[in-house]
Amino acid sequence: MKILVINAGSSSMKYQLIDMENEKVIAKGNCERIGAGGFISHKLATGTKIEYETNFPTHAEAFAEVVDLLTTGEHKVIDDISEISAIGHRGVHGGEKFSKSVLVDDEVMKTIDDLSDLAPLHNPPCLIAMRACRKVFGEKIPMVVVFDTAFHQTMPPKAYTYPIPYEYYEKYRLRRYGFHGTSHRYVSHRLGELTGRDDMKVITCHLGNGSSITAIDSGKCIDTSMGLTPLAGLMMGTRCGVIDPSLVSVMSEKSGYNLNKIIDILNKQSGLLGVSGIGSDMRDLHKAEEEGNERAKLAVDMLCYQIKKYIGFYSTALGGLDAVVFTGGIGENDDDVRERVCEGLEFLGIDFDAAKNKGCREEACITKEGSRVSVWVIPTNEELLIARDTRDIVSAL
Amino acid sequence: MKILVINAGSSSMKYQLIDMENEKVIAKGNCERIGAGGFISHKLATGTKIEYETNFPTHAEAFAEVVDLLTTGEHKVIDDISEISAIGHRGVHGGEKFSKSVLVDDEVMKTIDDLSDLAPLHNPPCLIAMRACRKVFGEKIPMVVVFDTAFHQTMPPKAYTYPIPYEYYEKYRLRRYGFHGTSHRYVSHRLGELTGRDDMKVITCHLGNGSSITAIDSGKCIDTSMGLTPLAGLMMGTRCGVIDPSLVSVMSEKSGYNLNKIIDILNKQSGLLGVSGIGSDMRDLHKAEEEGNERAKLAVDMLCYQIKKYIGFYSTALGGLDAVVFTGGIGENDDDVRERVCEGLEFLGIDFDAAKNKGCREEACITKEGSRVSVWVIPTNEELLIARDTRDIVSAL
Repeated sequence: MKILVINAGSSSMKYQLIDMENEKVIAKGNCERIGAGGFISHKLATGTKIEYETNFPTHAEAFAEVVDLLTTGEHKVIDDISEISAIGHRGVHGGEKFSKSVLVDDEVMKTIDDLSDLAPLHNPPCLIAMRACRKVFGEKIPMVVVFDTAFHQTMPPKAYTYPIPYEYYEKYRLRRYGFHGTSHRYVSHRLGELTGRDDMKVITCHLGNGSSITAIDSGKCIDTSMGLTPLAGLMMGTRCGVIDPSLVSVMSEKSGYNLNKIIDILNKQSGLLGVSGIGSDMRDLHKAEEEGNERAKLAVDMLCYQIKKYIGFYSTALGGLDAVVFTGGIGENDDDVRERVCEGLEFLGIDFDAAKNKGCREEACITKEGSRVSVWVIPTNEELLIARDTRDIVSAL
Repeated sequence: MKILVINAGSSSMKYQLIDMENEKVIAKGNCERIGAGGFISHKLATGTKIEYETNFPTHAEAFAEVVDLLTTGEHKVIDDISEISAIGHRGVHGGEKFSKSVLVDDEVMKTIDDLSDLAPLHNPPCLIAMRACRKVFGEKIPMVVVFDTAFHQTMPPKAYTYPIPYEYYEKYRLRRYGFHGTSHRYVSHRLGELTGRDDMKVITCHLGNGSSITAIDSGKCIDTSMGLTPLAGLMMGTRCGVIDPSLVSVMSEKSGYNLNKIIDILNKQSGLLGVSGIGSDMRDLHKAEEEGNERAKLAVDMLCYQIKKYIGFYSTALGGLDAVVFTGGIGENDDDVRERVCEGLEFLGIDFDAAKNKGCREEACITKEGSRVSVWVIPTNEELLIARDTRDIVSAL
């Protein structure tokens, strides 16, 4: 069975064709500048890379181009689109309606549309991609949607309710939803496979340009750091995370900017970028730290300190701790951040192994043998989880 | 030596006359409705209470009335104001200028005035009280000011810097300051006396209508939950604490209220009141919980859960934990909250003693003998600390 996984943004569309026999990627790529030109980069399992400018007036033309690349020419990987058994879409916001992945039908699409209010940047492109998909692949091919919020739907009310007037929840469903759920679910499931245990208290740290940390008890999410929107939680590349809400008004007063502009600054000019003044890429920040840049060092120190505090935060939420998982671009690749986070956490039972951690970029346990709490690096694979959910749902039809 | 301690608000002024020989309160009271009528309640150490309506056009008339009550009539406690050696003022915001209590002179008053920008509700009344004080007591009586923010000035930059563009700190000094410092300092110092140790890692929970939690290492604050303003940190009686900053704009969009109105709602209609819809008084909430009110239970559950998480948060910040202190109206009196917070924290080394905790409203250790982490109830006494600082500074003149 071959499954096509789609992750659509407003002007881009990433895709992976996955062979479920061996869970390997057959081909993958990204369609960019949809609606404003067009550029496609397409990569085969063999390593061959095809890139060219083209024209994508809408997502439908992007799909058609992807189909063309997959089925024709010297680099084709399948003979006909009928070889694709199903399509799995990454959905961002499933609100309180979706606690699991679901088969897409008209009603599901209408619900995603209704939820656009909560995720105006993310849900509309997902719907556009679904419609374009039907146009290109026809009505018969089953589609599944896997929501970023679904895994977090097991949080109890004390974790998801905001301490604001309750009517904002009743009327507008303003609450903590959390994001990156597919990633947190993937790595916690993978940890279960690696340890042979499904009853663990685990904290998963998805650290990338967007970052979130989740507390998982026996496979179920009990709390997560992102909130109503992905702006909340710990500081990120350019996002501030949770702050004194008065800052929003004081920043507005001081700068003369209106509310929308301040929220934009908190999303795009804050976090590591805002503190360092240099950028949000950890490699640049580490380099600057080494060269003696104090604000770059402060930014990285703040990030590591916040992650460290969140590990404590969720340990007490869980009433104990068995394992910590690092994933995402920073979590998988930045051994320095991992070491600075775990430093001083011996009292929690973390016996960190600096040697194992050093340079580690692959699946590995980075605590010493016998450490009461184990710490892991587990590269995430959201696309594979989307493909698996899609297979499971389609197989049961 | 007798010291008069003053805690002035915009329309109220609390006072205590303390005898430093035995650190006992000789008389105390509250002047209310200053500028809009006038009401005084005055209480003697003997238990006698005097209350009456009067007229307080300004804080000066309130001071004059207090002096009158202290020095004349059948309930007088001193013969002349010259018996008052010094006056200690509670100052709220000392910004980055004051990391200690200081003798008040013109320059100090000017600096407090300059800092009004950061604490528009609190610093102006403090200055008004100082000026009124000089008017009534004359120039010769020394005055000392003890700032709520001073104890927190030992926080390192990684704890006090906000992940927002750095220019907001450079230009406007927007950073975490923290409040309730006098209370956190008082109870942590008292804990040192009780345990005979000054090298402990301590988390002090000041839980009242306003609440804050502080991480203290060997007597020094390393982090605290309130921020630029007292709106931040954990949820409180009517304040929301830290939240997804996007909520500010989404709440504004949904409700049609402007930014200032939203900040007002987050200060006055949120927290326990907002979630429960009943009120912010824990006694009312516990009663409602018992009667089956689910939102009252949710509000209390949320509060306890947040305090519990903060204990983890600051344990990792401290790299270990020796003691937790509960203080403030809720911390000192609400055994149910204390039990719900400590439940499930055995993994941190807390061996809670439910029997010792039950009904405890006085200074006590509420963990079992041999508990690795000890938990304490220590009633706060900010006025006494203000009086002590005042004595120390005045004695050294």
